[in-house]
Amino acid sequence: MKKNLLVAQSGAPSAAINATLCGVVEQGLADENIEKVYGVKNGIMGLLSEKLIDLTEILAEESTRQLLCQTPSSALGSCHMKLSPWEENVFEYERAISIFRKYNIGYFVYIGGSDSMDTVYKLADYCKAHQIDDIYIMGAPKTVDNDLPETDHSPGFGSAAKYIGATFSEISCDCNVYALPSITLVEIMGKETGWLTASSALARINGDGAPDLIYLCERPFSIDDFIDDVRDKMAEKNAVVVAVSEGLRDASGEYISTALQNQVSGATGQKVLAGVARFLEEILKREIGCKVRSVKLNLMQRCASHIASQNDIVEAQRMGRAAAAFAIAGGSGEMVALRRLSSTPYQTEICFVSLQDVVNRVKHVPDTWINEAGNDITEEMLEYLIPLIQGELPCTYENGIPVHFHLPKK
Amino acid sequence: MKKNLLVAQSGAPSAAINATLCGVVEQGLADENIEKVYGVKNGIMGLLSEKLIDLTEILAEESTRQLLCQTPSSALGSCHMKLSPWEENVFEYERAISIFRKYNIGYFVYIGGSDSMDTVYKLADYCKAHQIDDIYIMGAPKTVDNDLPETDHSPGFGSAAKYIGATFSEISCDCNVYALPSITLVEIMGKETGWLTASSALARINGDGAPDLIYLCERPFSIDDFIDDVRDKMAEKNAVVVAVSEGLRDASGEYISTALQNQVSGATGQKVLAGVARFLEEILKREIGCKVRSVKLNLMQRCASHIASQNDIVEAQRMGRAAAAFAIAGGSGEMVALRRLSSTPYQTEICFVSLQDVVNRVKHVPDTWINEAGNDITEEMLEYLIPLIQGELPCTYENGIPVHFHLPKK
Repeated sequence: MKKNLLVAQSGAPSAAINATLCGVVEQGLADENIEKVYGVKNGIMGLLSEKLIDLTEILAEESTRQLLCQTPSSALGSCHMKLSPWEENVFEYERAISIFRKYNIGYFVYIGGSDSMDTVYKLADYCKAHQIDDIYIMGAPKTVDNDLPETDHSPGFGSAAKYIGATFSEISCDCNVYALPSITLVEIMGKETGWLTASSALARINGDGAPDLIYLCERPFSIDDFIDDVRDKMAEKNAVVVAVSEGLRDASGEYISTALQNQVSGATGQKVLAGVARFLEEILKREIGCKVRSVKLNLMQRCASHIASQNDIVEAQRMGRAAAAFAIAGGSGEMVALRRLSSTPYQTEICFVSLQDVVNRVKHVPDTWINEAGNDITEEMLEYLIPLIQGELPCTYENGIPVHFHLPKK
Repeated sequence: MKKNLLVAQSGAPSAAINATLCGVVEQGLADENIEKVYGVKNGIMGLLSEKLIDLTEILAEESTRQLLCQTPSSALGSCHMKLSPWEENVFEYERAISIFRKYNIGYFVYIGGSDSMDTVYKLADYCKAHQIDDIYIMGAPKTVDNDLPETDHSPGFGSAAKYIGATFSEISCDCNVYALPSITLVEIMGKETGWLTASSALARINGDGAPDLIYLCERPFSIDDFIDDVRDKMAEKNAVVVAVSEGLRDASGEYISTALQNQVSGATGQKVLAGVARFLEEILKREIGCKVRSVKLNLMQRCASHIASQNDIVEAQRMGRAAAAFAIAGGSGEMVALRRLSSTPYQTEICFVSLQDVVNRVKHVPDTWINEAGNDITEEMLEYLIPLIQGELPCTYENGIPVHFHLPKK
């Protein structure tokens, strides 16, 4: 008997999560054992409230799926929700299985980050423990932060890295026009890991000057060393551009933004509420006294599909297909991943990893990929990054603006 | 006797100012009356300190000039400097003329915004008053703000508008993924005029939802009305995206960021130092209480050459050529400008306008192009904007990052 395939998306948006969705759907449409491909709106939360939508017709045309691949964020919507262990609260699990039964779902691919992989792990574990052996559940990674372990990198990261590299190359041109000294601090996403901040270094590969200093949250951040570093750079050049992780912490593990808030407050009687770059801006104005400004790449770094990395989008789609194929072949409770075989030439292979090794772990930038002074990255880190941003995805524009896919409104 | 052509750039960076430079240089290279094309580093400031550079060889190849056209910011560097009237301080004028003489400069094109046009006006006026009739000085407009009068629009604006429209279309996808209510405030450049903020509406033309509300600095901003507007939108949809000009002012003419600073300070005992969106974020958190975030498009909106408008770059280059040709033909003390003949189909013609009508005036968004409630733009405004963002300039990438032109280092 034919079964149906279900797919959902979760966690924060990225430029590649729809390409993975596209891959899952394509695999389902192509497989004669699959009757329909369903999507769920708003991830696992939507599943529990039965927000299923039949994608079989909606995504039947290749041109529609191409549009989907150039659409940022989650076309099916998303959620932030972690399931309680089934031993503590079985209701959500029973509810999920009953909906799977109602829609004849045999295979479920959940695309997302750490929490979503936790959901896949728990759902698969529940099925195993309850001898449910006709529902296969797979995870597909997605995170701009690149913090998922057991995969060389995660879809979404490459496109964000390309946006960040390109933007630093443009900001470098922007900041270098005046004969007067200036400092530009650019804050990049990453509360726990510095992968995105490290990718600012990609701006240098064609000869643009920025960034001059790079601070990742993997190393404890010292304000005194930072001021010295900036002073040293100012002695060399007029316009200094600095990349900082939003998650920078001091030696005691406290976020710099919190630590500095107290300090700034003490010194001037003012409390400033903003990101770490904004805080450091105040410090540098006080300590160095030249023109200082701060920039946050904010949402743009994760949703700038118009400058997506072709390698990233192609891999995302391929991983979606592989995850669906693996589930249909009887695989469950694992995450599709990438293993790098070589950087030059760039070669990867798809593999499947145990979710037990993925959940509740964070993949940090290796300490050896950060320079000794803790204010830059090494050549090895750059070699890792370069293949991930290669190729420009052709983007369809209409009326001068990129075209995006949207689910039909009913 | 052959003469030399001089070109300089000034004011804040844009994605099109190098295309105008390219046009000026091309005209000089093609004209048999011109021996050499010189550039000046750092605008009028660099002229006074004799920072001239011979561009004749550097920009001889078309491929180099193409690279120049896709390079954001001012390749020759820039400055912020306004000349005193020559009646008050003749020294700078005499110095400029002596350098013109030394380098056999017959023609000077200065590319920039309001202050640069003021410089062109004063220099030309000085020449006229002193019977210097063999030096011809022309202005070429450049401003992302689009605030220069006497021209339909200024080069640089179209590319910034395209970036803003595209980015809002992507932010719209990003913000609409969760089932929970959220407000996203996006702050756009423009202290005096709302042209750039208005161009956020371009995101809607292909069906993306954002922005829901648009506030230009041409209308007095009422916080109470703003909160009501947002509340009304929240009743219709989950994710509300709002575009605000950095230069919003209250009815008394005070910047909202200043007015609110006192208010927030009074209410919570905290002073917040940031842009208007950041201030409004605090207000909405307090008044509405849902998830609120603020985003600043910052430097990116003026330097994102990788998504430049082809119409903008082509026009910028054409205007550079025309300004140089006009000077070589004996024109002086005017600014090259664009007159729109028709929006559909888009047709413009190049004209030359008196600088007396340009300097010390600001072109605001017409009041009739803002809706009655002051929270959106009209169809007429959109018709004005659409032609300016058409076409995608082919951008050369190497190693996954756009390639930029840089002056050779000596």
